[in-house]
Amino acid sequence: MTKQSNLANRLADHFGSRLLTAPAALSPYAQSEGPHAYDPPALVAQPISIEEVQRLMVAAAEQAMPVVAYGAGTSLEGNAAATHAGTLCIDFSQMNQIIEVLSEDLVVTVEPGVTREQLNLELRNTGLFFPVDPGANATLGGMIATRASGTTTVRYGSMRDNVLALKVVTADGELVSTGTKARKSASGYDLTHLFTGAEGTLGLIVEASLRLHGQPDSIVAATWDFASIEGAVETVIATIQSGIGVARMELLDEAAIRACNVQSALGLPERPMLFLEFHGTTASIAGELESVKDFGMAFGGGELRTATATEDRNALWKARHHALWAAKAMIPGARAWISDICVPISHLGEAIARAKTAISASGLFAPILGHVGDGNFHVFFILPPDDPASWDKAKAINEAMIAHALSVGGTCTGEHGIGLGKREAMLREHGGASVAMMRAIKQALDPKGLLNPGKIFLD
Amino acid sequence: MTKQSNLANRLADHFGSRLLTAPAALSPYAQSEGPHAYDPPALVAQPISIEEVQRLMVAAAEQAMPVVAYGAGTSLEGNAAATHAGTLCIDFSQMNQIIEVLSEDLVVTVEPGVTREQLNLELRNTGLFFPVDPGANATLGGMIATRASGTTTVRYGSMRDNVLALKVVTADGELVSTGTKARKSASGYDLTHLFTGAEGTLGLIVEASLRLHGQPDSIVAATWDFASIEGAVETVIATIQSGIGVARMELLDEAAIRACNVQSALGLPERPMLFLEFHGTTASIAGELESVKDFGMAFGGGELRTATATEDRNALWKARHHALWAAKAMIPGARAWISDICVPISHLGEAIARAKTAISASGLFAPILGHVGDGNFHVFFILPPDDPASWDKAKAINEAMIAHALSVGGTCTGEHGIGLGKREAMLREHGGASVAMMRAIKQALDPKGLLNPGKIFLD
Repeated sequence: MTKQSNLANRLADHFGSRLLTAPAALSPYAQSEGPHAYDPPALVAQPISIEEVQRLMVAAAEQAMPVVAYGAGTSLEGNAAATHAGTLCIDFSQMNQIIEVLSEDLVVTVEPGVTREQLNLELRNTGLFFPVDPGANATLGGMIATRASGTTTVRYGSMRDNVLALKVVTADGELVSTGTKARKSASGYDLTHLFTGAEGTLGLIVEASLRLHGQPDSIVAATWDFASIEGAVETVIATIQSGIGVARMELLDEAAIRACNVQSALGLPERPMLFLEFHGTTASIAGELESVKDFGMAFGGGELRTATATEDRNALWKARHHALWAAKAMIPGARAWISDICVPISHLGEAIARAKTAISASGLFAPILGHVGDGNFHVFFILPPDDPASWDKAKAINEAMIAHALSVGGTCTGEHGIGLGKREAMLREHGGASVAMMRAIKQALDPKGLLNPGKIFLD
Repeated sequence: MTKQSNLANRLADHFGSRLLTAPAALSPYAQSEGPHAYDPPALVAQPISIEEVQRLMVAAAEQAMPVVAYGAGTSLEGNAAATHAGTLCIDFSQMNQIIEVLSEDLVVTVEPGVTREQLNLELRNTGLFFPVDPGANATLGGMIATRASGTTTVRYGSMRDNVLALKVVTADGELVSTGTKARKSASGYDLTHLFTGAEGTLGLIVEASLRLHGQPDSIVAATWDFASIEGAVETVIATIQSGIGVARMELLDEAAIRACNVQSALGLPERPMLFLEFHGTTASIAGELESVKDFGMAFGGGELRTATATEDRNALWKARHHALWAAKAMIPGARAWISDICVPISHLGEAIARAKTAISASGLFAPILGHVGDGNFHVFFILPPDDPASWDKAKAINEAMIAHALSVGGTCTGEHGIGLGKREAMLREHGGASVAMMRAIKQALDPKGLLNPGKIFLD
């Protein structure tokens, strides 16, 4: 009898239809939005409580079965791939309750399967919102695990800045609380931030307390075309350096705009553009717009077109969020592969220029989009099916982008995490002594290596 | 031959007068601003480079000598106490160079012995500043080690939010880099935040890259008296919940004001007061002041008196920073003992009211001051010399404050750290499973237990 049938038998009585073993039910768990191909897990359990997660972890530990947590399947580096034979996948989609909104304390406590759109829908009448927005409607557990960020990070910070406390099930099934609901604390090791970004390799996130922010009195979105991508980037750099708290500051190159126009009928000029959003009072936004305009006009900015009505703003950001699908739709049957470097902002112009030059030389269709206010940008490599030469070209460009980022004090991943795809780059970024320390922590917390094996570290 | 004379002999040639062994030279290292009494270290070394710190750590490891890092001696919980026989104290005061100011990237890289005042003096002509302000002129290394915060945290965050990357010497003398200069990263475990607040128990911080912020166009400070401390606290709560980004929001009760008046001749009404500071443009500050006034007038606020001139603002904050000394001066020969709880802001009013009632009943002189915008406040117990009954009363009040904070989801320390004084409280706050995980990490990174032994964890 195999390990997994052993385990399945033990768990079937308790979990019933929430234990999946049929191939058709398992196959969706072998899909993600990244380029990595892998097999489905051996079985999937869908717990509805912390106690059930503990029960699963204890059972898996007894059988020495690998365990992978799964949220919405939106990760991009194979972060939740069941790469090891006999893996138990814990699907958190049914732990999707908002446990408590402490509106006076600007804190919400959620189960890990709550998605960011679900959370903000729930909060809409409280005057509060949760700002971190990676584009995809990811689960909050997944966003914590990959230390996600996104379009609003330039103002509101990443998951790192917005997670107050976690509950985590350890490799031996114990439950650990990592913090309190106080806004700050100097008490003990910062386990909250150790788990934030650990990609489920140190424990299973089963509850999270997150910081909320007040909905701004006024919101103005804007699109702004530029004569050159360099001009758009210089405008961003000047804005950041001036300390203006723009809420969103996204770059789309002309290829990205073309794809969005085709998909979302935006009717935008097919030139490099900034998508902006300002949060504040009518007066404060007017002042910020004025300052930002001054910067942009010096760098070849065209017409800054604002949108204030909710439906117009939503249409704009929906188009931005759907840019990947829009780009993919430009080449039938294409697969997408997304790079994710982040550099100190003074190096952003050069980093984007290098990527742009390499893409042009390669002949690939590869729009550039980025959370440029953070120094973070993506190349969406849209690769024809069955064309290994395209993949090789994309790999070479990605590799050169990472090498340049590391050479200027940047990182190989701003927000997608390491997963399978960036393990070698992580080693180069941090160096052997640092990665050895990470491995020592992994060994201390998961001595049997059961939690999301094969991720973050090269085998 | 004892361990330390062994080590002293080995190191004397290299370090010369930067190796201290004479009792008179060692005794200052047994002093801190906290109430804890302990012996001096066995020897003190004053390295001037990372290589020298590595050399010291390797030598200490060979002799199995405990190692404690020392900055400015301003910690309050015995965090840098050499409690173990034969301790080597590493005094970082001569590693006080500002290595690099990347003004375009809003990043500075410093040696750990740079003090916050030194850093801001150096930055004054760059248009940038480092905001974290614990009051004391602590070293940045010490502020990182204790996860310090202070008066500006309500707007600019604590050390947690402002440390980008560290270099750390490990227990076996290796050098580890924990991050990059990018504003965000999803690459690997967040070692930066593991060391931030670890109080030197996991490694020695030898370099830090910190986030800088733009100096605001305009700064307005203000004092504001209230009919009751409850009214002042309610005003703070309303302001925080409204999302107004006040830069400083400090509470001083009437006893604290009395002490400041005596020491700094402020001439303030001896009533509960808020000390405020607003950063922004003239226009944005005017709007914020208007909103805050509206809140306060509903809660018994008196006259809000603003100060715009630099010297007036500086005098105000100097008085605030000297409040501890001012309070101590009220009782000749007194010792101070400072509590440090932090609660979710909706519980702040009750927490302060309970402390106030207990202080009144005790007959102690114990002003209340706090970074109330964070939900964090301190009771300054000013205790007559040779009066054990006063100490017992203070202990009982402190204990009750911690118990209440933990019962409402708060923490036993907002910013002073655990050190010697809060070890039992930390265990209660985090629970056994969480502290066991911290101990597992400690064991993995410092298996011989050489780094700041006896701190954070109960023996």
